[in-house]
Amino acid sequence: MKNIALEKLCKEMSNQGINGFMLGVSTDLEYFTGFHPKSCSRFQALFVMDNGKKFYIVPEILQEEAIEVLPESTTIVSWADDEYFLKKLSTAVDEFGLNNKVIAVNEGIKAIDLLDIQNIMKAKFHNGKDILEKIRVRKTAEEIHNLREAAKLADAVMEDLTKYIRPGIQEKDIKKKIEELFSQKGADELAFDPIIASGPNSSKPHYNDAQRYIQEEDIIILDFGCRYKGYCSDISRTLFVGGATPKQKDIYNIIYRANAEAKEMVKPGITAETVDKAARTIIKDAGYGQYFLCRTGHGIGMAVHESPYIKTGNQEILQEGMAFSIEPGIYLSGQFGMRIEDIVVVTDNGVEVLNQFPRELIVL
Amino acid sequence: MKNIALEKLCKEMSNQGINGFMLGVSTDLEYFTGFHPKSCSRFQALFVMDNGKKFYIVPEILQEEAIEVLPESTTIVSWADDEYFLKKLSTAVDEFGLNNKVIAVNEGIKAIDLLDIQNIMKAKFHNGKDILEKIRVRKTAEEIHNLREAAKLADAVMEDLTKYIRPGIQEKDIKKKIEELFSQKGADELAFDPIIASGPNSSKPHYNDAQRYIQEEDIIILDFGCRYKGYCSDISRTLFVGGATPKQKDIYNIIYRANAEAKEMVKPGITAETVDKAARTIIKDAGYGQYFLCRTGHGIGMAVHESPYIKTGNQEILQEGMAFSIEPGIYLSGQFGMRIEDIVVVTDNGVEVLNQFPRELIVL
Repeated sequence: MKNIALEKLCKEMSNQGINGFMLGVSTDLEYFTGFHPKSCSRFQALFVMDNGKKFYIVPEILQEEAIEVLPESTTIVSWADDEYFLKKLSTAVDEFGLNNKVIAVNEGIKAIDLLDIQNIMKAKFHNGKDILEKIRVRKTAEEIHNLREAAKLADAVMEDLTKYIRPGIQEKDIKKKIEELFSQKGADELAFDPIIASGPNSSKPHYNDAQRYIQEEDIIILDFGCRYKGYCSDISRTLFVGGATPKQKDIYNIIYRANAEAKEMVKPGITAETVDKAARTIIKDAGYGQYFLCRTGHGIGMAVHESPYIKTGNQEILQEGMAFSIEPGIYLSGQFGMRIEDIVVVTDNGVEVLNQFPRELIVL
Repeated sequence: MKNIALEKLCKEMSNQGINGFMLGVSTDLEYFTGFHPKSCSRFQALFVMDNGKKFYIVPEILQEEAIEVLPESTTIVSWADDEYFLKKLSTAVDEFGLNNKVIAVNEGIKAIDLLDIQNIMKAKFHNGKDILEKIRVRKTAEEIHNLREAAKLADAVMEDLTKYIRPGIQEKDIKKKIEELFSQKGADELAFDPIIASGPNSSKPHYNDAQRYIQEEDIIILDFGCRYKGYCSDISRTLFVGGATPKQKDIYNIIYRANAEAKEMVKPGITAETVDKAARTIIKDAGYGQYFLCRTGHGIGMAVHESPYIKTGNQEILQEGMAFSIEPGIYLSGQFGMRIEDIVVVTDNGVEVLNQFPRELIVL
C-alpha cells in the first residue's frame, strides 16, 4: 500500500507542477513510508521528487532507525552535531537538481527551518497541505478496518469508565485510567491527550488542566481516543454524576438529536457543510446557536484531525471511504457544556457509524 | 519575572531592528506569558510589538483559556471554525501596523502557516531563535531552584528503578513505571518520552520503541526527566543486569571519566566547545572517538533541549546561570551503547552538579 501512496503523490505532484515535496516528521511521513520518529529539535525530512527519487536528511544519531524503516530506494543524507543540517542539505539539493524549482512543504516543517533553508536554496515554496489531504482523504478497506478496531477500543474504555468514575476522584485520575485501559486492551498509544472536563470546566471545548475533583451532581465531558495500527479513534460522551437538572436534560436532548440528524444525513454526493448544517439547524432552532462554538466534525485517519472538515462553507463533496467525527456541542460559559461525538465512515450508499457506545443520557 | 522577560524581549527587538515577534505554542510562549496550551491543528500565536503592544490570535473554542492566563494588556483576536485565521490576522496586522515590517518567528510556527501568512502580509520574516535563546539562556535563582528540584525528582526515580528493573519485564513497563513514580513524587509531567534502550537497542542514542523484554546480562540505558514548575530534568544512567563483561567495564570507565572531566572543566569564561573537547578527548584517546556520535550536551530550562549546545565549534562563552547536560556516550552499532548524563549549572566560579544519583557502575 505504501508504495502505491508514494506513486500517487508523485503523480499528483506532476499534475500540479510541484517538483519536490519536503515532508517533516508527521503522520504524512508515516503514511507514505511507515517511519514515525519522535519529533526532535534536530532537523529531519524526506524530500520526494516528482520522478520518484527521494532522500532523507537525518541527524547522524537517528540514522540507524531511518535506514531500517525507510524504503531501500531512499538516499540517506546524515548530518553530525558539530555541523548544521544546511550544509549537507545544500549539497543534496544540488545533486537532486532542486534549485529554482517548486517545492511543497508539509505540516512537519517548522517556519524557522524553512527560513534557514530559503537562505541556501532558491525555490518557490508552496503549502502542500491540500495535495496531501487529497491523497489521504478516502480510506482503503484496510484503513477502515483499523479505524473500526480503534473505535471498538474506545467504546470499551468508555464502558469501563462508567464503572470507575465517582465523586472524590480527580480529573487526572480518569486520564490515567484511560491510558491504562487502552494499554491493557491492546491500543498502540493514546491518539491525543484525553479531555476530562467536569463541572464548569465542561464549558471549555478543549479544556486540558485535569486538576478538579469530581463532585456529586457533576456533569463530565470525556473525550479521548487511541491509535490502533497507526489509525485513530476519537469519542466523546457527556456523563452525569448523581443526576441531571431539567435544563441539562433539555440541552442533552438537543445535542443528542443534532448528533443523530447529522449522521442520518451522511452519504456520498452531498457536501460537508450539509452535514454541519443538519446539526447546526437543530441547535439553532432550539435557541442555542451561539453556544455551538465549533465545527460539527473533523476528518480522522492516521491524524486525529485531518480532512474533511465538517463545517459551514466547506463545499467538498463526501465520497465513499471518507471518515470523520460528528460532534455537536453546546457550551455555556461559566455553567457547563456537553457534546456527543461519534466517528462515521461514508459507505457506497450511506454511512457506517464506528462507535457503538450508547448515546442515551447516562447517570452514574 | 514574566513582565521583565517581555520587556527584555522588546528591548532586544529594538536593538536588532525587529518590529514584531510571532510566537506560536512553545516553551517561549510559556516563558514570556505562562500560557501553555496543547499544540493543535488550529492556528494560534502571540504577536509582540517592539513598543510592548501585543495581540493573541486564537481559535474561538480556546479563547476562554487564553483570556484567563495571558497578561491583561493582550488584545484577543479570535477566529471561528467557519472562517480561516487569515482574515482576522490580516485585520489585526493592519491595526497594529505590522505590514512591511521585520517580523521574527519562533519554533512554534509551522512553515505551512508562514507560507499562508506571507500571502496576506508583506513583511520581512526572520528566524528569531537566537534572540529568544539569548534572553532565556542565563537562569535566575528561581529558575535554578526549579531545575534543582526537577533533578532531585529524577534522581529519586532512578533510585526506585534500580529496585524495580529485572529480567522478564518489557522496556515499556519501565517507561510506565517512570511516569507513575514521577506522578507520585509530585512532578508536573514527563519532560519527554523516556528512552529505555536495552541490549542491542542501547546502541541507538534516541531509541524509542520499548517493545523488548529485559534479559539476563543486559545492558540498559535509562534516559528520562520530568517538569517541575515548568522546568525540566534530564538524567541518563547505564545499568547492568546480572553483570558486565570486561569490555563493557572498560568502556563504562571511559565514559565515566569523560563525564567527570567535562564537568570539572565547567566555569564562567570558557567556551562551550572546551567542555565538549574535554569529554571528546578522553573518548578519542581511548580509541572510541568515532563511536561518540553526539554533542556532549544541550542546554536545559523550560525546554529540554535549548541553548547552550556543548559541541565542537560552539565558541559561545559560558556564563553564570547557564544550565546544560553533560552526556558523553559510546555507541557500538549492533552491540551496545552507554552514556552517563548529568545536568550542571554554571556558578560564579565553577559548577553545580544538579544530579546526585551515583555514577559508579551498578549491577542489578
